[in-house]
Amino acid sequence: MTLPQVDIPHNMINLGIGQPSNDLLPLDEMKNAAAYSLSQNSRFFLAYGAQQGNENFRDTLANFLTDQYTYPVSPDQLLITNGNSQALDFICHHFTKPGDTIFVEEPSYFLALKIFADYHLNVVGIPLDDHGLDADELEKQLENQKPAFIYTIPAFHNPASITMSLKRRKRLIRICTEKNLLLIADEVYHCLSYTKEPPLSMGYWANKCPVISLGSFSKILAPGLRLGWIQADTNLIKKFSRSALLESGGGFNPFASEIVNSFICSGGLNSHISMLKNTYRKRIEVFFSHIDKCFPSQVVSQIPSGGYFIWVKLPDHVDTKLLRQDAQKNSVNFLPGSYFATRNRLTNYLRLSFSFYPSKILIKGAKRLGDVIYTHLVEKS
Amino acid sequence: MTLPQVDIPHNMINLGIGQPSNDLLPLDEMKNAAAYSLSQNSRFFLAYGAQQGNENFRDTLANFLTDQYTYPVSPDQLLITNGNSQALDFICHHFTKPGDTIFVEEPSYFLALKIFADYHLNVVGIPLDDHGLDADELEKQLENQKPAFIYTIPAFHNPASITMSLKRRKRLIRICTEKNLLLIADEVYHCLSYTKEPPLSMGYWANKCPVISLGSFSKILAPGLRLGWIQADTNLIKKFSRSALLESGGGFNPFASEIVNSFICSGGLNSHISMLKNTYRKRIEVFFSHIDKCFPSQVVSQIPSGGYFIWVKLPDHVDTKLLRQDAQKNSVNFLPGSYFATRNRLTNYLRLSFSFYPSKILIKGAKRLGDVIYTHLVEKS
Repeated sequence: MTLPQVDIPHNMINLGIGQPSNDLLPLDEMKNAAAYSLSQNSRFFLAYGAQQGNENFRDTLANFLTDQYTYPVSPDQLLITNGNSQALDFICHHFTKPGDTIFVEEPSYFLALKIFADYHLNVVGIPLDDHGLDADELEKQLENQKPAFIYTIPAFHNPASITMSLKRRKRLIRICTEKNLLLIADEVYHCLSYTKEPPLSMGYWANKCPVISLGSFSKILAPGLRLGWIQADTNLIKKFSRSALLESGGGFNPFASEIVNSFICSGGLNSHISMLKNTYRKRIEVFFSHIDKCFPSQVVSQIPSGGYFIWVKLPDHVDTKLLRQDAQKNSVNFLPGSYFATRNRLTNYLRLSFSFYPSKILIKGAKRLGDVIYTHLVEKS
Repeated sequence: MTLPQVDIPHNMINLGIGQPSNDLLPLDEMKNAAAYSLSQNSRFFLAYGAQQGNENFRDTLANFLTDQYTYPVSPDQLLITNGNSQALDFICHHFTKPGDTIFVEEPSYFLALKIFADYHLNVVGIPLDDHGLDADELEKQLENQKPAFIYTIPAFHNPASITMSLKRRKRLIRICTEKNLLLIADEVYHCLSYTKEPPLSMGYWANKCPVISLGSFSKILAPGLRLGWIQADTNLIKKFSRSALLESGGGFNPFASEIVNSFICSGGLNSHISMLKNTYRKRIEVFFSHIDKCFPSQVVSQIPSGGYFIWVKLPDHVDTKLLRQDAQKNSVNFLPGSYFATRNRLTNYLRLSFSFYPSKILIKGAKRLGDVIYTHLVEKS
């Protein structure tokens, strides 16, 4: 999710980095999984793979998702991808042409917005409320135009950390079904709940209405694998599998699939996710309590129940791009809200992540940023 | 390159399969490379990778290519990809819009043609002669239109097995430079020479004129890795690296890159390529001598000096799609020439591959196919 091979200036605490810290990447367990996979006598995963993804891996993934999502997921509903970014790129290639309109939540994942811009799409932002994408506003917008698709991050939203309620999910599904609208649900944080389980993942409706759910091993295992999946109606999955790119290259990632297959089958992924949840849960508690203590009272944020992010609202007059200049001078950093907006909006918001640093550093970061905000507010008032 | 996880009917010899046989995939060596990579204390390759590809791997790859290509290749000229098909897809996304014209060799790699069709490109075929792409015909076509790019397979062509001469390469480069035409050189077979080294790879001119050279580990190591590279001018590589897809997902394949890095550094890749060359050299000799012996004299083919393929010309009146029906009934298969044409041309050609079967089976296949061709020619005469 950005800032690859992070190059952070000495002493800088960059709370903008939305990726797991290195110590949360399971090196030893992956070593065992690779040793196991490569000790079998079969070497099919070194050859061109099945276009949909190798069958044994899709079986394993379907079982894993059935357990995580608490409803039956079939291997026929799954296409293995090179991770979420590639899946988004693939979806754009399949469903849009330059100039098409799509709807996204406002705010939305800033690098998804860049991918959409790369496809020359006209991106319309639909606001979020506390229950997720604002369905009234969506219906209003639909009176004027039909988008090529709607892009949503239903659980532990990036950056807003909101989880869409079950009621809102059902309403969204109803709207999409009635109007035959394609819904792209980016569910990469779904399995990372710390204090409250999210409702049914949107993939639940995949066989009944035009919903495509995207998942990834980047947040729950290791981003460097470039491994994820598309969950959709079996006919759509078959259609995707017949794409020229897959026909030529074979499945998107047979090698990593096989090693992750061993990792999952050994129980490694479930243990790893438990560890991640415990770690992030503790980090949030500590980090948020220091935000609460160190930030001025005009600054508003909510403790997240999962995911990677805290979305912070400052007084309307604050421009977080300017605030960031002050922050950087004081060796702390974040991502300004306008990055996540379709136009120059959300200028008084900022995104913090707790995925990259241990609690001790997060505390320092909260203190530093609190001081910067105090000073900035005083100077601007 | 097609037919992933090959499902071959019992007793069928499918000479259409253009992929390495399983016994040529270096399982044990990859096991050692993975064990080495995952035993280091660093775990950067499990995190989001540098957008251009991790630096140490690009260094290693540049050294390897400098050795193979016999001219200095700089790591700055390289972008790591998910293999050649993804690179072609990436190139189409970057340089074309629907309806654009591109030029390809006729014949050309049939699944590249499918990728181009998927981008709704208008594909114009330029014939091949014994020295490669017919430059006279190219210049004639350029009088009418300027393509978004020219796609060529300069060494050990798929399917025609021709290698473009140095003189023709220079002429092509001169034409592209003068007319500012983008040349996409698919050089995946360049390192697989058996009896005659190919001239300079087209990447040699990458810093001087608009040439992009594509390479891959699929033919020289293992297709399941989905790992390859783009070699181009450093400015173009920088531009590619800033694409939204890479900004969001990080480098295309950090995990496989690191394991292949260990594989190359241990000397494994050089040994493996030597083994492949010896194996394929022997297979060709045996296979070709049996083709020579078993096929009717009206059937023309040339012994390849590298690559995977033998391109076979039958008498003009033969339709190799119909011939294939006879072949399949007799448990032997191939790819008909029309697959490799831009329109319904080359109907009297067929492609054979010697990459997938050991010599013993290739001999059987040559005999079976020879019989089928004899019978077919008699029936049609």
